[in-house]
Amino acid sequence: MHIKEQKELFAQAKQWTLDAGLMIRKNLNKPLSVTTKSNHKDLVTTMDEQVEKFFATNIKQKYPEHQILSEEGFGDQVTNLSGFVWIIDPIDGTMNFVHQKRNFAISLAIYYDNVGYIGIIYDVMADEFYYALKGEGAFKNDVKLPPLAKDIVLSETVLGLNHSWLMDNSFVHEKYMQQLIRKIRGSRTYGSAALQFAYVAEGSIDGYLSMRLAPWDFAAGKILVNEVGGLTTNIYGESLNLLNRSTVFTGNRHIQQTILNDYLKTK
Amino acid sequence: MHIKEQKELFAQAKQWTLDAGLMIRKNLNKPLSVTTKSNHKDLVTTMDEQVEKFFATNIKQKYPEHQILSEEGFGDQVTNLSGFVWIIDPIDGTMNFVHQKRNFAISLAIYYDNVGYIGIIYDVMADEFYYALKGEGAFKNDVKLPPLAKDIVLSETVLGLNHSWLMDNSFVHEKYMQQLIRKIRGSRTYGSAALQFAYVAEGSIDGYLSMRLAPWDFAAGKILVNEVGGLTTNIYGESLNLLNRSTVFTGNRHIQQTILNDYLKTK
Repeated sequence: MHIKEQKELFAQAKQWTLDAGLMIRKNLNKPLSVTTKSNHKDLVTTMDEQVEKFFATNIKQKYPEHQILSEEGFGDQVTNLSGFVWIIDPIDGTMNFVHQKRNFAISLAIYYDNVGYIGIIYDVMADEFYYALKGEGAFKNDVKLPPLAKDIVLSETVLGLNHSWLMDNSFVHEKYMQQLIRKIRGSRTYGSAALQFAYVAEGSIDGYLSMRLAPWDFAAGKILVNEVGGLTTNIYGESLNLLNRSTVFTGNRHIQQTILNDYLKTK
Repeated sequence: MHIKEQKELFAQAKQWTLDAGLMIRKNLNKPLSVTTKSNHKDLVTTMDEQVEKFFATNIKQKYPEHQILSEEGFGDQVTNLSGFVWIIDPIDGTMNFVHQKRNFAISLAIYYDNVGYIGIIYDVMADEFYYALKGEGAFKNDVKLPPLAKDIVLSETVLGLNHSWLMDNSFVHEKYMQQLIRKIRGSRTYGSAALQFAYVAEGSIDGYLSMRLAPWDFAAGKILVNEVGGLTTNIYGESLNLLNRSTVFTGNRHIQQTILNDYLKTK
């Protein structure tokens, strides 16, 4: 992708994201229809659907040849990543959206032939606009984010992860995870994968772990973290596949290997 | 305490809190001296000390007969709660202050003869000013907070708690806590006790649990939660003592008893 095309696409994606944010803020206090998907923790609202539809309609109209990979069913059945693919989560952190009316984000990425060129994570209520352009760096409200710290040690690390990592689970032995929690300085749980990628990129947390993310949860975040020198893999240290759900470990590369080797004892 | 005196004291406390917040924001990007206290997770900075000193100096000058109970040693050796006692945490969430430069709060409470009359929790960087006046309600940026929901069920509950509750610990059997995490809708960890009290008061989370809080961590929050109809106890369901550190469970009273009975199996 040429830099000119990248910047034009970014300008359009940014505008639609800000428009979608405005739509969400305007309708924030209207009654919401909330339903559960796979289980009682997995929520969707009419607002998720409305926002995704807004993106899908606009993209299909302006870029009919682009594919859309998205959460709520208004995109395409994407089976290969050739050409342009927009990967969108209209509201990442729906539980926060429902319970808190904040701490959720719009996550939008544009890939070309399986390479991420544009990543946007927009914290709608805080009006914090994180973005990254491949090769150009990552930004928060147009201020360039510095590279992640090189002098980090595990005992001064703060990680984002859900409580389920400390419990019996099918991915890792929880006893080692409990040792990790004791070893590091602090752990946080924010309820939005996209925002936790953004926090990693800005250095507010040093890493983020998830047991199951969909492509729309990590596609934008991966580009942001990459642009500040961080790494994003699954819990086996392997690259993520944009067509599959996966475990995810993103963070400062200077702690990643130690955590992978010594604490993420996979089953 | 008469309502007039309560309102005058509140106006003064609010002004000092806003002044302290400004001081913190002004100095946010200056180099910080960070030291650890009891362990590598327990931090203090020169800013904590500077802010506490600011409060202590002002209070001692204007209200020489009032006692001050505070974190960093500029207060008094408080052994009884008769008369006026200011209970202050200059920066609640010091780890967030150091690592994130946000998500921390000033917590300030004024008690008279062991009864809480004024509670202030100020999220300095978000500029969100939570307060409560005994008998008058709780407020966020001067908007009155509604009473906590009465129709809450455990499966739709979001709780704030650290990861250590799911690990071997000296307070409760972690297996039951893990059942609780599976049962509820979501769990969050924000790294500031005071802010999590404020989130309970505004209904962003339905409860907050901590294994060890000092009086300055909970004194203001307890008044806020009380004013919206919530309950604050230790994990045995007993009242908190303002002179001691304690376990803490604050939240919506309609879930508190079930959690106490069925999940907080104390050792």
